Amino acid sequence: MSKTILIVHAHPDPSALNSALKDVAVEQLQALGHRVLVSDLYAMGWKAVFDEHDFLDRKDVSRVSFVDESGHAYATGTQAPDIAAEQEKLAMADAVIFQFPLWWFGAPAILKGWIDRVFAYGLAYGYQGAGNTYRYGEGGLAGKIALVSTTVGGPAIDYRPRGINGPLDELLFPLTHGALFFAGMTVLPTHAVYEVGRLREGSAADMFEHWRGRIRRLFLDDPISFRKQNGGDYPDRHVLHDAVAPGRIGLTAHVASTEEGDREPIFASPRVSAEQRT
Amino acid sequence: MSKTILIVHAHPDPSALNSALKDVAVEQLQALGHRVLVSDLYAMGWKAVFDEHDFLDRKDVSRVSFVDESGHAYATGTQAPDIAAEQEKLAMADAVIFQFPLWWFGAPAILKGWIDRVFAYGLAYGYQGAGNTYRYGEGGLAGKIALVSTTVGGPAIDYRPRGINGPLDELLFPLTHGALFFAGMTVLPTHAVYEVGRLREGSAADMFEHWRGRIRRLFLDDPISFRKQNGGDYPDRHVLHDAVAPGRIGLTAHVASTEEGDREPIFASPRVSAEQRT
Repeated sequence: MSKTILIVHAHPDPSALNSALKDVAVEQLQALGHRVLVSDLYAMGWKAVFDEHDFLDRKDVSRVSFVDESGHAYATGTQAPDIAAEQEKLAMADAVIFQFPLWWFGAPAILKGWIDRVFAYGLAYGYQGAGNTYRYGEGGLAGKIALVSTTVGGPAIDYRPRGINGPLDELLFPLTHGALFFAGMTVLPTHAVYEVGRLREGSAADMFEHWRGRIRRLFLDDPISFRKQNGGDYPDRHVLHDAVAPGRIGLTAHVASTEEGDREPIFASPRVSAEQRT
Repeated sequence: MSKTILIVHAHPDPSALNSALKDVAVEQLQALGHRVLVSDLYAMGWKAVFDEHDFLDRKDVSRVSFVDESGHAYATGTQAPDIAAEQEKLAMADAVIFQFPLWWFGAPAILKGWIDRVFAYGLAYGYQGAGNTYRYGEGGLAGKIALVSTTVGGPAIDYRPRGINGPLDELLFPLTHGALFFAGMTVLPTHAVYEVGRLREGSAADMFEHWRGRIRRLFLDDPISFRKQNGGDYPDRHVLHDAVAPGRIGLTAHVASTEEGDREPIFASPRVSAEQRT
């Protein structure tokens, strides 16, 4: 069945690897009969900075409460038009692909600003005006697939479980878990290409073929098994039950292991890197 | 001895808690005889988006390589003037305080864009044109103190070692370790105020007094004990030596425990929250 996919793309150069990955995704999705929407943030001149000008009918002009004004503007249809337009694309989308270069171990500011501005109160948090009742696995974006695809300058070895940068899945946890899963999305394992400066023709061909495979399996691949807030693992909605991942602390405790009790990372990212290909 | 402190501030409302924390820091530092520089990013209309217009003399106009163009522009004095101005403040600063509201478990886009644009190749990475030789504890910003101060909407319980959001220190690791320590800075434990919507007069007074204490101890407090790349823990500059934090994986393995072998988080953030104060 034909689906709608939104690609949020964050690189200004049409000849860059990120743009090539975006183009390959568009081609592959269209070949499968899907409808593709692209938010090319640099080409659109996307406003990255969330500020009071995004609220066209202020609830309280004496102060700037982003939570209150975002909720009011979203509920009353008085958000800045560019925010509303992105939310309309999101509403139509069955899946969203985020394509960006990893800068300082996170998304470029233009993409962070897309999250900051588009993920409004009432939609991506404070769903149904019910505080934190529906976060992490439920909420305004529930039922939608999310796939993060990033290019990394450094070698994969730096991102190993004991690599000096830390594992990529933990570095991207604020995005994958804290924004996308928080808002209800079903998040696939991150697609990462390492050592982009060293890609050679042969390995680039393999890498693109791997990426085409990820795109073909967009609605088939198993997601990261982030624990749902209301699935029983957090009886008070705040802290893991003692019997869940006993003794584990930190970010990875919020991902269910294939075998409970594993201490290995459990994001199961299919990694592609120059290192592995050579 | 009088020092120079740069405060990078990311909230548009002068009456907001973040602005009050910034004002308190300015007052306290000036009372101590220090010189204070403030980069009030919203007030300055800071350009968040790093793009090709930031390079006034392109090395290669046929493509946009941020690494190559950033290195060329930094080396030849052809960066956008607003970037160069921030780097001049950085060069003068003995310490830098980052003050921002936590949005989607990270810095607002305007502050991420400050890092993206100001942390140039040759300064914050690729120091001395030597690739990754001097990162993590050495580099262009070595000798400078960094203090991250953030306000959090949610309750502290959500950020406990097994709290549903994950520990704040791990969520901010891409900033504290991946950007500030990477560039050589000495990073203090993060200052966080939780449940900012529920601050009452009494607890706010306590919170500000605690913050004044942090400011007074800016050059005295022990930093987070991130492991230096070239201190012996990473013999190949990529992966932890087997004998260091044996068996530990993930982000927290890169912070030395007070007692080696501890499994508890070791960032030692002095936390202040409404929860703890009531």
